[in-house]
Amino acid sequence: MSLLRKLAAELLGTMLLLSCVVGSGIMGTQLSQGNDAIALLANAGATAGILYLLITVLGPVSGAHFNPAVTLVMRLRGDLGTKESASYVAAQLIGAMAGVMLAHAMFDQHLVQIGTRVRTGPAQWLSEGIATFGLVLTIVLGLRFRQSAIPALVASYIFAAYWFTASTSFANPAVTVARALTKSFAGIRPDDVLAFVAAQCAGALLAWVASSLLLDSETRRETV
Amino acid sequence: MSLLRKLAAELLGTMLLLSCVVGSGIMGTQLSQGNDAIALLANAGATAGILYLLITVLGPVSGAHFNPAVTLVMRLRGDLGTKESASYVAAQLIGAMAGVMLAHAMFDQHLVQIGTRVRTGPAQWLSEGIATFGLVLTIVLGLRFRQSAIPALVASYIFAAYWFTASTSFANPAVTVARALTKSFAGIRPDDVLAFVAAQCAGALLAWVASSLLLDSETRRETV
Amino acid sequence: MSLLRKLAAELLGTMLLLSCVVGSGIMGTQLSQGNDAIALLANAGATAGILYLLITVLGPVSGAHFNPAVTLVMRLRGDLGTKESASYVAAQLIGAMAGVMLAHAMFDQHLVQIGTRVRTGPAQWLSEGIATFGLVLTIVLGLRFRQSAIPALVASYIFAAYWFTASTSFANPAVTVARALTKSFAGIRPDDVLAFVAAQCAGALLAWVASSLLLDSETRRETV
Amino acid sequence: MSLLRKLAAELLGTMLLLSCVVGSGIMGTQLSQGNDAIALLANAGATAGILYLLITVLGPVSGAHFNPAVTLVMRLRGDLGTKESASYVAAQLIGAMAGVMLAHAMFDQHLVQIGTRVRTGPAQWLSEGIATFGLVLTIVLGLRFRQSAIPALVASYIFAAYWFTASTSFANPAVTVARALTKSFAGIRPDDVLAFVAAQCAGALLAWVASSLLLDSETRRETV
Repeated sequence: MSLLRKLAAELLGTMLLLSCVVGSGIMGTQLSQGNDAIALLANAGATAGILYLLITVLGPVSGAHFNPAVTLVMRLRGDLGTKESASYVAAQLIGAMAGVMLAHAMFDQHLVQIGTRVRTGPAQWLSEGIATFGLVLTIVLGLRFRQSAIPALVASYIFAAYWFTASTSFANPAVTVARALTKSFAGIRPDDVLAFVAAQCAGALLAWVASSLLLDSETRRETV
Repeated sequence: MSLLRKLAAELLGTMLLLSCVVGSGIMGTQLSQGNDAIALLANAGATAGILYLLITVLGPVSGAHFNPAVTLVMRLRGDLGTKESASYVAAQLIGAMAGVMLAHAMFDQHLVQIGTRVRTGPAQWLSEGIATFGLVLTIVLGLRFRQSAIPALVASYIFAAYWFTASTSFANPAVTVARALTKSFAGIRPDDVLAFVAAQCAGALLAWVASSLLLDSETRRETV
Repeated sequence: MSLLRKLAAELLGTMLLLSCVVGSGIMGTQLSQGNDAIALLANAGATAGILYLLITVLGPVSGAHFNPAVTLVMRLRGDLGTKESASYVAAQLIGAMAGVMLAHAMFDQHLVQIGTRVRTGPAQWLSEGIATFGLVLTIVLGLRFRQSAIPALVASYIFAAYWFTASTSFANPAVTVARALTKSFAGIRPDDVLAFVAAQCAGALLAWVASSLLLDSETRRETV
Repeated sequence: MSLLRKLAAELLGTMLLLSCVVGSGIMGTQLSQGNDAIALLANAGATAGILYLLITVLGPVSGAHFNPAVTLVMRLRGDLGTKESASYVAAQLIGAMAGVMLAHAMFDQHLVQIGTRVRTGPAQWLSEGIATFGLVLTIVLGLRFRQSAIPALVASYIFAAYWFTASTSFANPAVTVARALTKSFAGIRPDDVLAFVAAQCAGALLAWVASSLLLDSETRRETV
């Protein structure tokens, strides 16, 4: 598989992911008469659905990271090189921003917006750390024990994490940057991006360490 | 498998699909006290459920297209001939219209209605293009990498697409024509059908091109 | 597997199924502030969940019919004898009634109640016929093409059918009889039971005929 | 696999489970405008999602009990020794309490709270007995007939049980103790804990007996 194809898969996948995250947030807000719980149910369900699909069909092409925090851990594991990792992250960022604009276009809104939703403070940062910790733990343990289930595992995790973290679980630096470009339900104020990204990277690294401790080399592998 | 059996499967499947799309829309509207987000949650969940089922049990008979845009792409791939394709589309259209009437009968409404819901403009057309692009991409990549998961992949995609496209993702010319025959939640004004169908075909063709570029002949296949 | 064990599995499974149908209906009504769409979402989701589970774990014991209409079709297929079929139906009826009482006990209500919800008329009967037609079609085609997926197929179907049929899809004579014993959300007036059961049997028989026509002996089987 | 790794997996898994149960309860309450049915839908969906994930990725490490009632039954089956069982229960209790505090931290609440929600009386106790009966039956029969599906089976069961039992199905002594440490939606008054735990153990033992009676040594095993 050529690198170009892999980058195209990362860009396309992250674009569709963000279209879904932002688009379903807009639709949910428009229809739910101010009951944000219903909007978040739809948002979480739609995101889980598209993740299951995108990871299944693009995983064999690029690994279906769609997330710089995941690419970082895969780099640390030695699954891909530094240069390839950097190009992955670039493709994810471009795809994520394109996805937000695509969602705006579908809902007949200004293509470029600046997020206004305040998301800051230690509780939010802890939430993002935990959210990314859980995501990376899922992926690393899933790769070890039940690789074919990873699309369903990640989808299930993200559905849960939308609800159990106070930040609704961005858990992805490319998603965070791109969501600073929308005023909708899913948006974030640009000032709040950096701390989110830092918390996400910390959570990802912690998960990498924790999963190494949890696994020993003798652990039986399942191939189902 | 004789052609007649295949056409019966396409007709039956598209009929049950439309009964579900329209019927669950009516039920959702009747029960949700005007909160359309709850109605759409039910509508999306029910449609995903019936798609998973119909594709699983009728796929081995006819391929379970239920969708002229899918049949078009399968024809371009050479999976079926021109004459067979045309008969598939006819069966899908008949099935879809029968399904709408069946839903009306179950809910004690006039069998034939004319849709009144306005669905037009570039944002709606873009939505239908993206919706069908995603559906066909899912199917073509799914056929390559994880054929047994296609029912779940399509179901998950459609659940997401109901929410993240501004048109609630018809993504199917037969469905679009048939939904012009209901005044309910799921309806569309007949004047708006043609542009929807054009956008759907454009999206399907684009997905076919994109998936060809994304795949090369060496891509590893998974057989799980 | 002795007949006694099979009957115990049918009784236990149908009991838990009815506890779930009635119990989740009561809970939904209590919590949803009169928004019946939310109650039905919960009711449908819970029923799908318990069906997936019960069919998976009791299927290997008794076949997990939990439904006289299914037992009828299995008898016609020659999968079990007349006497065994009759004992299955008896176990299902006893289990279903016990399940309703168990739900009432858990929610601190009178154990035995008489249903008051009117469910009658041709549209309702058509709904029950279609609902059972779809269920039996799912099972018969599923047995042929993807046996291991039957629990998920039935669960998905019932979720959809709760929404797309005007009767919320009883689709089961034992369930219908038992639901005449509750005044709750899921109840039915005893006077309306007989016509529901007749419609269900008609739908089941029609599905049996339709699936025979749809399948020929050469159809490829999938074993996944 | 060393015992220490197993205990770490039990602690981590139970912690994330409780973070999800309590966190999604808080989020649901904050967003749902007093419509508890929507909050419970989110709570049940999130819990099902995290259970599917945690059992899949930690099952190969520790068996993924996360529940003293399950450990009790596994001890009775001879799957683990008395000392190991006791250390499992300790890890579960510590993890559960840590998880509640983590949820509080993420939602910027006092870390330690005392539950105030009254949950008592025979109907509640019956509910907990049935809830745990169903859970253990699912696990024991699942281990016999379809081991690879246990994560999905338990997740589906718990989603259903949140709705069909009047107590919203704690079904887990460690969860019960920990939920006495939150004032939120998911909380329980400390005075009510003991009776819940007793009912749960009774239900677990009954399920163990019932599954033994239901299975004979000749039952065919499925390996799918």
